[in-house]
Amino acid sequence: MNANDKFLASEARVDAAVTQALPRSRKVYVAGSRPDIQVPMREISQADTPAGMGAEQNPPICVYDCSGPYTDPAAKIDIRTGLPPLRLNWILERADCEELPALSSEYGRRRAIAASGDPHLRAQGFELTRRPRRAKAGANVSQMHYARRGLITPEMEFVAIRENQKREGLSELLLRQHPGDSFGAAIPKAITAEFVRDEIARGRAIIPANINHPEAEPMIIGRNFLVKINANIGNSALGSSIQEEVEKMTWSIRWGGDTVMDLSTGKNIHETREWIIRNSPVPIGTVPIYQALEKVDGRAENLTWEIFRDTLIEQAEQGVDYFTIHAGVRLAYVPMTAKRMTGIVSRGGSILAKWCLAHHRENFLYSHFEDICEIMKAYDVAFSLGDGLRPGSIHDANDEAQLAELATLGELTTIAWKHDVQVMIEGPGHVPLHMIKENMDLQLKLCHEAPFYTLGPLTTDIAPGYDHITSAIGAAMIGWYGTAMLCYVTPKEHLGLPDKNDVKDGIIAYKIAAHAADLAKGHPGAQIRDNALSKARFEFRWDDQFNLGLDPDKAREFHDETLPQEGAKLAHFCSMCGPHFCSMKISQDVRDFAASQGVSESEALQKGMEAKAVEFVKAGAEVYKKL
Amino acid sequence: MNANDKFLASEARVDAAVTQALPRSRKVYVAGSRPDIQVPMREISQADTPAGMGAEQNPPICVYDCSGPYTDPAAKIDIRTGLPPLRLNWILERADCEELPALSSEYGRRRAIAASGDPHLRAQGFELTRRPRRAKAGANVSQMHYARRGLITPEMEFVAIRENQKREGLSELLLRQHPGDSFGAAIPKAITAEFVRDEIARGRAIIPANINHPEAEPMIIGRNFLVKINANIGNSALGSSIQEEVEKMTWSIRWGGDTVMDLSTGKNIHETREWIIRNSPVPIGTVPIYQALEKVDGRAENLTWEIFRDTLIEQAEQGVDYFTIHAGVRLAYVPMTAKRMTGIVSRGGSILAKWCLAHHRENFLYSHFEDICEIMKAYDVAFSLGDGLRPGSIHDANDEAQLAELATLGELTTIAWKHDVQVMIEGPGHVPLHMIKENMDLQLKLCHEAPFYTLGPLTTDIAPGYDHITSAIGAAMIGWYGTAMLCYVTPKEHLGLPDKNDVKDGIIAYKIAAHAADLAKGHPGAQIRDNALSKARFEFRWDDQFNLGLDPDKAREFHDETLPQEGAKLAHFCSMCGPHFCSMKISQDVRDFAASQGVSESEALQKGMEAKAVEFVKAGAEVYKKL
Repeated sequence: MNANDKFLASEARVDAAVTQALPRSRKVYVAGSRPDIQVPMREISQADTPAGMGAEQNPPICVYDCSGPYTDPAAKIDIRTGLPPLRLNWILERADCEELPALSSEYGRRRAIAASGDPHLRAQGFELTRRPRRAKAGANVSQMHYARRGLITPEMEFVAIRENQKREGLSELLLRQHPGDSFGAAIPKAITAEFVRDEIARGRAIIPANINHPEAEPMIIGRNFLVKINANIGNSALGSSIQEEVEKMTWSIRWGGDTVMDLSTGKNIHETREWIIRNSPVPIGTVPIYQALEKVDGRAENLTWEIFRDTLIEQAEQGVDYFTIHAGVRLAYVPMTAKRMTGIVSRGGSILAKWCLAHHRENFLYSHFEDICEIMKAYDVAFSLGDGLRPGSIHDANDEAQLAELATLGELTTIAWKHDVQVMIEGPGHVPLHMIKENMDLQLKLCHEAPFYTLGPLTTDIAPGYDHITSAIGAAMIGWYGTAMLCYVTPKEHLGLPDKNDVKDGIIAYKIAAHAADLAKGHPGAQIRDNALSKARFEFRWDDQFNLGLDPDKAREFHDETLPQEGAKLAHFCSMCGPHFCSMKISQDVRDFAASQGVSESEALQKGMEAKAVEFVKAGAEVYKKL
Repeated sequence: MNANDKFLASEARVDAAVTQALPRSRKVYVAGSRPDIQVPMREISQADTPAGMGAEQNPPICVYDCSGPYTDPAAKIDIRTGLPPLRLNWILERADCEELPALSSEYGRRRAIAASGDPHLRAQGFELTRRPRRAKAGANVSQMHYARRGLITPEMEFVAIRENQKREGLSELLLRQHPGDSFGAAIPKAITAEFVRDEIARGRAIIPANINHPEAEPMIIGRNFLVKINANIGNSALGSSIQEEVEKMTWSIRWGGDTVMDLSTGKNIHETREWIIRNSPVPIGTVPIYQALEKVDGRAENLTWEIFRDTLIEQAEQGVDYFTIHAGVRLAYVPMTAKRMTGIVSRGGSILAKWCLAHHRENFLYSHFEDICEIMKAYDVAFSLGDGLRPGSIHDANDEAQLAELATLGELTTIAWKHDVQVMIEGPGHVPLHMIKENMDLQLKLCHEAPFYTLGPLTTDIAPGYDHITSAIGAAMIGWYGTAMLCYVTPKEHLGLPDKNDVKDGIIAYKIAAHAADLAKGHPGAQIRDNALSKARFEFRWDDQFNLGLDPDKAREFHDETLPQEGAKLAHFCSMCGPHFCSMKISQDVRDFAASQGVSESEALQKGMEAKAVEFVKAGAEVYKKL
C-alpha cells in the first residue's frame, strides 16, 4: 500500500492535529449585510488579571483567521467531498457564467477518463461529479470588472469586514497605537466595502476568486490592507504524495498562510491540484508552465502556445485563483543575464529563456498576452506576473535584467487592466538591505501601483539552512515599504523540499514579517494583539501569553522545558530569572507606587518617596505574592 | 555525582563537537609587525568548478573567526589550566601595571579560601595560582588612554588586521560589491592600525581588553568596523551548572559570538566566571549588580555602594572586559514608567529602581560614577552603560523614560571619557520597524557617537518562541543604521533559559543580521563570502555551498534529508526541483550561449540566436551532464 492508497483508504477527516482549535480559541463569525456573509475570525479568550494586580477582566481578542472550517468544531470535514461552496450563490446570482458539461481542456478530459478507470483516483468522488463554470460569451466575471462598474460584491463586503480589527470591549490601553509611517499609502481608519471596491477598481488591490473555487473565503491583497503571506507546497519528481500535499495545505492555513501556491511538478499533478482546491478555504496559485513542461516531457523547446493554453484552461476550470505568468522574460533580456553570478534562478524564467533560445523567438507568453487575458477574465483568475529574471544572489540584485523585466511587467499590467483582469507583480529575490526600497519604489512607479508580491527578499546569501530568517528580514522591510503579499521561504530553501516542520517555520517567520510591517505602517488596530500579549506578560498570565502568540504550542513547550509544572505558569516569577530577579514583578511594585502619586509626579515625588520608602521596606517580605 | 563533579572528573579537553574544525576549514594566522601578533582567521577551501563549467580553480575564502584556539588542531586545550595568555607580554611591556599578592576584593579573598577547602572548586588549579594585575598608582591602562596619547598598541594592530577581508587570489567576480549606504559612517577601504587608534581616541570604537584577561584575542566594537554580536550565557537560581556555562561559551564562539556576557545569578557565580574567563578567547561582559544582589540575599534595598564597589573590583581582577552599569536609571525617571504597558523589564533597571524607591535617593551608580571610572581605568574595563529603562513592549517604545535615560547615558559618556575610560551604550528592546532609526539617530547625537550596543530590537510582541526572528529583523536594521554590536536573543526569550540549541539558533540569527548590515553599509569585502557561496551554488558545488555558510552542519543535514546519497551532492541538479526543473542548470546553458556572443550582444543576437537555436536543440539531450 503506497502513501496515496493509504490516504484514500483512510478516514475522511483530516489529522486531528490540523483540525483542533488552538488553545482557548474559538471560531466566531461576523455577519455582513446579508445572512450568507459570515466572516470568520478566531477569538482568543483571556484569564482575569490576578487579584493582587487588580483582578481586571480581560476581554477576548479577535485575530484574522485563515484556517477555514477546519478549526470550527461545528463544521463537518470530509476531504473526499471537499469544503462547502461558500461563494456559490454569489457567483450564481450574478448570472454571468454558465455550467459546462465537461472540462474544456482536452488534457483535463483525458485525465478524467483515466481517473475513472483508476480505482485510486476514482475515489475522489468530487472530480467526477463537479462541473466547471465559465463566463457566458462576452461576459467578464472578474472582481475588477464588477468594481469598475460600481458593483460592491459580497466578496468585497466580506474582505472589508475581515480586514477590520474587532475593537468592542477593548480598553483604551489595548487600543493605543503608535502612528505609523506608510510611505504615502492611503490606509483608512476603518475598511469599508466601498473602499475595497475602489482599490480593486484602481488596480491597487485584488481579490483572487476564481468562480470555480467557490469554497474559498474571500481575502484581499493590496498595500492599503493587512500584509498577506503565501506558502508554497507541491510535490516534485523526487518525492511527496497527494496526501502530503493536502496535509501541507491544511497545515499552512492553520498557521496563517493567506494563500497557497501548488508548485507540483511530479506525478498526478492534475489530481493533486483538484484535491487541494476542493479542500482549500484560501486562494490557490499555480505556475502553469510547470505542468505544461510535464506535458512535453520536460523539454522546454517543445512547449507550444496550444499546450500552454490548454493547461491554463484546465487549471482555470479546476479553480486556480491566480497564475504566475512569466511573460516578462523577453528574448532581448536573456543575454542581460550572462554576466550574472547566478544567471536565471526562477524555474519558470529558465524554462522560458530556454524556449526563447531554442526558437530565437519572442516569449510566447508575451506575444499571446491578450489571449491569456481572455482566459483570465472568463474565470476570474488573477495574474501574478512572474519575475523570471529575479536576482538569485546578492551580487545580481537590482541589475539590468531584473529591472528591464519589471518595466515589461508594468506594460503588461496596463494590458491586463484594459481587460479588467486583476494583476499582482512578483518581485525578488536576493537583495541587500539598502537596495530593497528601490525595488518597491520602482515597482510602484513602473507597475502603476498594482500589488507587489515578493519572495523574501533574502538579505544575504551566506546562511543556507536559515533562509527563512535571511528573507524574513527583507520581507519585513519590503512589507513596510508597501509590498502587499510576502511569499514565504522555508529553512530548506536552496537545499531541499520542505516538510511540515519547515512549512510551519517558514509561515511563522513570515507572519512575523507581515505583522511587523503592519505595525510600522500603522494599520489601525494592528497593535491590539501586541498590547494584549504584553499586558498578559506583565501580569504573569503565562497561558494568555502563549495563546495570544503566533504559535501557542511552541511557546508552552519552551516554557515547560525550564519549569515543567503546571503551577509554574501561575507563579509570580519568570523562568529566566528565578524569584529574586523577576524584573516584571519588581516593576509592578514600582508602577503601583508611581501611579499612586497621580499626575503631579514631580511635585509629589519628594514627599511621596519618603512615605513610600517606609511602606515599601515594610512590605518587602510580600513582594512575591502567591496566587 | 552531580554535574559539576562530573565536569571536574572529566578529561581536560572539551567536547570534540566544540573543538573539531568546521568542514574543510583550517585555522590560519596573519602575522603583524612583530612575531607575537598572530591574527587568527578561518580559511575555507573550495573544490574546482566542474569540468563542464570551466574547471576553474576556486581560491580558499578567509572568514572572521571568533572560535579561538579551540578549532586549532595544533593548540593544546586544557580547560583546567586555561588558554595561553596571548596578550601578556604586551601588557607587561607597557610597564604601567603591577601584579598584586592577592585579590583586592574582600569577597574574592573569602571565595578563594572557601575554594581551597572545597575539593571540587580546588580542582580549578588556575584560581589558586593566578595573581591579579592592576594599574600602578596614577596610571591608566585603558586602550583609550593609549590611543589618546598617540600610541598604537599591539591590540590595535591586531584588530586592524582582523577587520580586513583577505583578498589575495580572489577574482574580480568574487570581489565585486554593491556600493553601500552607511548613513555617513566613515568606513575606510582598508582598516589601518592608525585608523583604529583614531577611532578609539575619539570614543567611536572600543577594544574591551581587561589586563586580567590576557587570554582574549583583541576585537573592536564601533560603527566603522564589522558589526559584532554578543551571546548571553549564565546560570540562574533555577538551573544549569559550571560545566554547562563553559560549554555554552565555547559553543557560542564556535558559531560566531564576538563577545559573551556571563549573566549568572545562581550558585558559585564567582567560580563560574573564573572558569569562563580563563578559557575565553573573546571579551567577557557581566552585569555586576546581579552578583551584588546575591550578596545581599536578593534584597535590592540592602545594596550599598561598598558592596557594589567590592564586586566591581572582584570581577575586574578576574578579568571581566566590560561591565553593564545601570547608572542612567535616575530616581526622577522611575515614575515615568508608571503609565507603561510593561513597566521596567531590565533586571538591572528593576533592581536599581527598587533601591531608589526604598531609599528615596538618587541611584548610587549615578552618584558614584566617577568612583566607578577610577576602577575601570585601573584594569581597562569598558563601560556598557545599561538601558535599565528600555521598553519591554511595542507599546512602550521610544517613550519618555527610555529617552530620558539615553540622555543621561550621554552625560555619563562625557564623564567616562574625561577619565579615558572606554564606553559603549546599551539600547532597546521592543521597537516597531518605523521607530528604529530614531533610536540610532538620537543615540549618535546624545551619546557623542559612542558605540551603540542593542538588544534586538524586537519588532513585534506576538511571537513568543520566535523572538530570535522578531529581533533579528530589528537587529539587521539598526546594525545597518549604525549599531556596532547586537546582543542576541534566543528562541527562549521571555519563556525560559536557553539550552545549547537555542544559543546556536540565536547566534546564527544574529550573524545573519550583522552580516546583512555589513553588506548594506558597504563594508569593503563583506560581499566576498556571499559571492563565493553564490558561485558555488550556481556551479552545483554543494559541499562548498554548505562549507561557506554560517552553519555547514545544518545545511548538509537539510540537503541530505531529501537526497541522502553522497552522490547527490555531486549531481547536476537540485533536490528541490528534480532534473527537469533545475533552473540553475538551464541558466548555465543560457549563460554559455549569451557569453559566447561577447560584448556586442544585441548585434550578435539575431544571427547568434539562429545558429544557436539549431545547436541548442541538438545538444538538448546532454543538458544534464554527469560528472
